[in-house]
Amino acid sequence: MYDLIVIGAGPGGYEAAAYAAKLGKKVALFEKNELGGTCLNVGCIPTKTLLRSAKALEDCHEAKLYGVHTAEATIDMAAVQARKKSVVDILIKGVAGMLKRAGVDVIKAEAKITAPGKVSADGKTYEAANILVATGSVPAAPPIPGLRDNPLVLDSTGILDLNAVPDSLVVIGGGVIGLEFASFFATVGSKVTVVEMLPKIAPVVDDDIAKGLMTALKKLGVTFNLSCKVTRIEGSTLVFTDPDGKEQQVTGTYILNSTGRSPVLKGVGLEECGVVFDRRGIKTDEFGKTNVPGIWACGDVTGRCLLAHAATREGVVAVNNMFGKPDRMRYCAIPSVVYTHPEVAQVGATEAELKEKGVAYRKAVMPMAIAGRFIVENAGKTGTVKVLVSEKYGQVLGVHMIGGSCGEFIASAAAMVELELCVEDVHQIVFPHPTCSEALKETIIHA
Amino acid sequence: MYDLIVIGAGPGGYEAAAYAAKLGKKVALFEKNELGGTCLNVGCIPTKTLLRSAKALEDCHEAKLYGVHTAEATIDMAAVQARKKSVVDILIKGVAGMLKRAGVDVIKAEAKITAPGKVSADGKTYEAANILVATGSVPAAPPIPGLRDNPLVLDSTGILDLNAVPDSLVVIGGGVIGLEFASFFATVGSKVTVVEMLPKIAPVVDDDIAKGLMTALKKLGVTFNLSCKVTRIEGSTLVFTDPDGKEQQVTGTYILNSTGRSPVLKGVGLEECGVVFDRRGIKTDEFGKTNVPGIWACGDVTGRCLLAHAATREGVVAVNNMFGKPDRMRYCAIPSVVYTHPEVAQVGATEAELKEKGVAYRKAVMPMAIAGRFIVENAGKTGTVKVLVSEKYGQVLGVHMIGGSCGEFIASAAAMVELELCVEDVHQIVFPHPTCSEALKETIIHA
Repeated sequence: MYDLIVIGAGPGGYEAAAYAAKLGKKVALFEKNELGGTCLNVGCIPTKTLLRSAKALEDCHEAKLYGVHTAEATIDMAAVQARKKSVVDILIKGVAGMLKRAGVDVIKAEAKITAPGKVSADGKTYEAANILVATGSVPAAPPIPGLRDNPLVLDSTGILDLNAVPDSLVVIGGGVIGLEFASFFATVGSKVTVVEMLPKIAPVVDDDIAKGLMTALKKLGVTFNLSCKVTRIEGSTLVFTDPDGKEQQVTGTYILNSTGRSPVLKGVGLEECGVVFDRRGIKTDEFGKTNVPGIWACGDVTGRCLLAHAATREGVVAVNNMFGKPDRMRYCAIPSVVYTHPEVAQVGATEAELKEKGVAYRKAVMPMAIAGRFIVENAGKTGTVKVLVSEKYGQVLGVHMIGGSCGEFIASAAAMVELELCVEDVHQIVFPHPTCSEALKETIIHA
Repeated sequence: MYDLIVIGAGPGGYEAAAYAAKLGKKVALFEKNELGGTCLNVGCIPTKTLLRSAKALEDCHEAKLYGVHTAEATIDMAAVQARKKSVVDILIKGVAGMLKRAGVDVIKAEAKITAPGKVSADGKTYEAANILVATGSVPAAPPIPGLRDNPLVLDSTGILDLNAVPDSLVVIGGGVIGLEFASFFATVGSKVTVVEMLPKIAPVVDDDIAKGLMTALKKLGVTFNLSCKVTRIEGSTLVFTDPDGKEQQVTGTYILNSTGRSPVLKGVGLEECGVVFDRRGIKTDEFGKTNVPGIWACGDVTGRCLLAHAATREGVVAVNNMFGKPDRMRYCAIPSVVYTHPEVAQVGATEAELKEKGVAYRKAVMPMAIAGRFIVENAGKTGTVKVLVSEKYGQVLGVHMIGGSCGEFIASAAAMVELELCVEDVHQIVFPHPTCSEALKETIIHA
């Protein structure tokens, strides 16, 4: 009899399992694939490893801007893939070691809930007071004629394994995943074309920053077709309707389908136990509870916020609540980073969201070059910081950035939003000089 | 008649002047050299520009670790110097533009206080209700025989202008300034030897982190002689006594004197007005007041905390107090960054300080590699996060880091120390995944 059974060892599940075990609970964690989930195996980590190699190529190209001479650099995709595999392996071992030290029973098998408190796996039955469903998500396969079973159409998992740089790539979907691959392949030499249904790229990103990102990616050579609806795929040719209703087509060595992700709901036993879910995911409340007592859920399978760190926080919140410690999930201060070059980072409300909600706000927009270190370290590049504060008290409501290492200092802004700090409070916090992070403070105190 | 006269246009003076002007005050700012002070002209900014070029060289050398092939890279010091000059010029223009927009009268002349409320410059007298002394500091010249007027001995200003990489460099002083130059010159190919009086390098840095830095710099080829007292200089040969009392010597192409900085106290009119100061600087209280009503001071000239961002904050505090807004300088949450490769960043108390004060504390020390992005982006490198929290409430008292882009996310820790957050509070703040900044949260929640 376990205190907790977790199904799925992604960043939602494995962190929750370890956290509960450290609280002294008896915990079992089921995983049918490798530990680490999408994030570690076919998501954040391998993508960022590819992007780091693209950055190494870019660094060599840009060295002359800093007075360093070198010959033309070339990328060796086989070496890049070998490194990717090695990084993923190291991190999987890290997760395994961490779970072992925490005292979690890790069971490598597909698990199914047979009733509240009961899980079956490998022909055995396991019992637990609480079950946490953290089965994650898989790439969505929209019903586009010619998409399924087409070897020239890759999803975000398949494209990670290319052993050569394709001459050209057509990306369906200008969301975060599509843009990160566009950034990578454009940097290493592919001709990249993005086709997006909406009139903007990166729908979750504030409009001004998304525009800045599009400009930067265009400079890398990426072509964008916005407000375009994909109608069918023929071989490696994508056929779509442009904003004027005219049929267009574009052919690539491959087509990347990056149209979103779908929750993993099948085979978990949800219907059998009466757990409420829809196409977007399992319905949970702010404590991580489903409608069935003793069954909890966190991460992508809930469809609430498809980010690894949101899944982790949701899992911890669920564990706290199942064992009597008050805690509550809040989504207003979950930061997110887009790992394109340039990098994008944000937390809190976008300007469009504030307008939609009718919140009175003030804003400040500053070039990141107001921070001396940005100029020193980013020759030929630009960046922007946009801050939204409430009209009345100057409470920090949203921070949106592009450029430099903004993903590393967005955590400061996440703390400000979470702690409901106002401009006056930020005056008191001293940022070190010279850093790019100063641009954040400087923009806030001008809001 | 001005509301405020500021003497010295470094980051203490120019920011205070602009801040007061934005409050609607009539402000004059006197500067005898270029705008921007030590920091911009001969300190942080030019040093970081050189270090950025060293990083470009390092990036080319390390590209193969990421699957990128290139030929041997070489550094072109003339190009590095040209870039340094161009970056400094851009930033000086930036400061000038900012002061103009703020409405500050900038007067390029040496100013002397003739009486409280009276300043003389260029034969004219200027009057103001308040005078803020922000004259800064210059490299100290200790009384070492053979040091003064020796063309082979450079200080931190002189060494910035070298147009060729010296074969070898002897650094007197293993403090922050000496170490940054050691890091630069070792990377670009000089044989560097550091001679330090104390038994450790970087005296302001926590012992564990300072040891990590020394190990990293040794790998770059830097030789350290600790607990060694310099006795004299002969040409470019430094003679010193080793810990066993034995005389040793080391010869370099140049000797860098980086033994600290002295406040600029002469010619300011301090004695004439009865302003109390000593060898370390002008005595100020936590509001920026000197002993003479109407005369205030901030920055290096006070000798309290020789950091640009501390000077800026001190200047703002002084302005707030002179115009009736309550504010108070606190030094416990001033972060600092050492821009060596690897970078060091810290805020709050060191472990040695807590021990000395008898504060009961808990600590956590974790490798930065617990953050996946660190492994992804820092092939072959290590890093460490050390966190000190109070025994009873888990209040964050000190954060000490080495590796990655820690200087960019130390601002998060500065906020935590300033706001007196405890471990429990940090649990609620969501850091984005995958970032190196996660290593900070992860270490704190393990403290």
